Amino acid sequence: MSIERFLDNSPSSWMAGSGDHSDIVMSTRIRLARNLNGYRFPLAFTEDEAHKIDQSVSATLLDADEEIQMNFSSIQIKDLSELSRQVLVEKHLISPKLANSPMTGSVLLSDDESVSVMVNEEDHIRIQCLFPGLQIQEAYAQADTIDRLLDKELPYAFDEQFGYLTSCPTNTGTGLRASVMMHLPALTMTKQMNRIVTIISRLGMVVRGIYGEGSEALGNVYQVSNQTTLGKTEEDILSDLQSITEQIIQKEKEARSALLSHSANTLEDRLYRSLGTLSYARIITTEEAARCLSDVRLGIDIGLIKDVDVTILNECMVFMQPGFLQKYAETTLNASERDTFRAKLLRERLQMGENPKTKGEELA
Amino acid sequence: MSIERFLDNSPSSWMAGSGDHSDIVMSTRIRLARNLNGYRFPLAFTEDEAHKIDQSVSATLLDADEEIQMNFSSIQIKDLSELSRQVLVEKHLISPKLANSPMTGSVLLSDDESVSVMVNEEDHIRIQCLFPGLQIQEAYAQADTIDRLLDKELPYAFDEQFGYLTSCPTNTGTGLRASVMMHLPALTMTKQMNRIVTIISRLGMVVRGIYGEGSEALGNVYQVSNQTTLGKTEEDILSDLQSITEQIIQKEKEARSALLSHSANTLEDRLYRSLGTLSYARIITTEEAARCLSDVRLGIDIGLIKDVDVTILNECMVFMQPGFLQKYAETTLNASERDTFRAKLLRERLQMGENPKTKGEELA
Repeated sequence: MSIERFLDNSPSSWMAGSGDHSDIVMSTRIRLARNLNGYRFPLAFTEDEAHKIDQSVSATLLDADEEIQMNFSSIQIKDLSELSRQVLVEKHLISPKLANSPMTGSVLLSDDESVSVMVNEEDHIRIQCLFPGLQIQEAYAQADTIDRLLDKELPYAFDEQFGYLTSCPTNTGTGLRASVMMHLPALTMTKQMNRIVTIISRLGMVVRGIYGEGSEALGNVYQVSNQTTLGKTEEDILSDLQSITEQIIQKEKEARSALLSHSANTLEDRLYRSLGTLSYARIITTEEAARCLSDVRLGIDIGLIKDVDVTILNECMVFMQPGFLQKYAETTLNASERDTFRAKLLRERLQMGENPKTKGEELA
Repeated sequence: MSIERFLDNSPSSWMAGSGDHSDIVMSTRIRLARNLNGYRFPLAFTEDEAHKIDQSVSATLLDADEEIQMNFSSIQIKDLSELSRQVLVEKHLISPKLANSPMTGSVLLSDDESVSVMVNEEDHIRIQCLFPGLQIQEAYAQADTIDRLLDKELPYAFDEQFGYLTSCPTNTGTGLRASVMMHLPALTMTKQMNRIVTIISRLGMVVRGIYGEGSEALGNVYQVSNQTTLGKTEEDILSDLQSITEQIIQKEKEARSALLSHSANTLEDRLYRSLGTLSYARIITTEEAARCLSDVRLGIDIGLIKDVDVTILNECMVFMQPGFLQKYAETTLNASERDTFRAKLLRERLQMGENPKTKGEELA
């Protein structure tokens, strides 16, 4: 199977915009960190060890295709161009760390891109499941299936007292990181995010912007995940995250209602202007595009904007990143050229999804 | 004939966007100030005198319909609602001064709105001809025809030494004010207007913004007109204005070329964003709308924006004013409601004129 399959412009399944609460929760991710007994951890291992680990993990997973009814492809990082690696990072299928481990790293990707198993990243094995919407239990069940499959064939580094052993002690124990990617424009607009971040951190969870740097998350997209992996069962970690996510969803819904009831006109104006900017701009920075995409997505979610595909934010936040843009342009691009291509890509994406006759209005 | 004819939303002929240099010169106006012998001037006259003047002028003009092959309607200001007066002012068919003279004022309007003869404004008679594009000689010829017609029947106040006598000495002599309304976005963007205004004023001409207050003309629309009416022949006044207008046209064209060659991308981005704002905004002030309309008109004129009607600036600058907006809304509107209706009217106007499928781009 061609690597191109994973690099082309087609969206990954996690961008589908389906799943519970998909108007607020863009995706759910489960990550399990595992290592194999009998090999040094990646910080210290030899290329030969890395190769053997890769072969064992790949063989186990590829042989189990039928059993788990998924088709996997194994990709060696060293076989990828720098641009291709970047694109996989931007699609959240591999980590930047793996992309920078060309000698030892590989990844096993399921056809629908919902499962990626990174081999020889920080740990020997990183099982990742990425589902659209709020699907914590579903994503965990998927990861658990892969985990059991590998566990059956391969000797995991496991300690009765500490649990799964990992390169970094912050992952030791369950090796589980569960996270939800949330679109929280109304909480951001009404300046409630700082307070929420503080409360959540007291509950052993972490909130961070998933795109961009700085205090305000790019595109108002935040990732909420568990901080601790040790001293809690998997079930507790998942149910705590579920509970906190549901509370944030409720707060975001209240903030959206408040905006709609107190400033519907200015809100509508702002959201439509952003649609106008995305539809017409010839030059646009990542920051502005993210802000506009967030506005348009909010407009769709609260029913003000119609005829635009609800997956616009999920997809475009990925596709407008440097790797994708250069793949799209089929050439290397400097920052200013990227701003031009970003604008072009966004216009084309909107023309696909929008009925331009109505410009978001019902025809009389 | 119904007064409604002049108040409805249909554009006046001067908005047609035709005529010489119509990419820069929006319209040409000729105004002749005349008074009748044997009556006191409007500052001092009685209502009875006003009534007699009105009857003489109206009768003369209405009787000559066939001779001059134009059909006129006589409208008494007192018969108009305040809103209707405002709309006629906004269409440049009557002056604010006439609108505020309900007891004595009237206007004779030609069907195509190219000629309006105000009666009992500052002077007994103000003949005005408004033509699209640069048509100084044509507009003057039209005004002159009306003038000769009236002169033949009515005794003008004329002095061998001073020429036509007027209420205000600044109009005495020829009574002629010739003006061109120019769209000068590139000279404004490149900050050359202050210099040009200074030079022009030294040549006995006046430049002012025709819409709005303040130093920068709303929508980058400037009116250039002769300052002096005395001591120059009509021919000299007209040819001086023609010459200065042509020089400004040349400067504006050079500035447009310079912008296109030095900053085509940022210019294109700016112009299209303005089209996006006009197409999508739900709330828009006069100032922002004027800026965006100027941008879109420039985009059309330099060939960057297609599928948008070239008359957009001429028409919308008129239609988005308070009187028209309230007529359109069929109710009185406060300032914030006007901003909402202005946005609605602009969107509707753009949907009429634009092929929305292309959003200004050629389809692949």
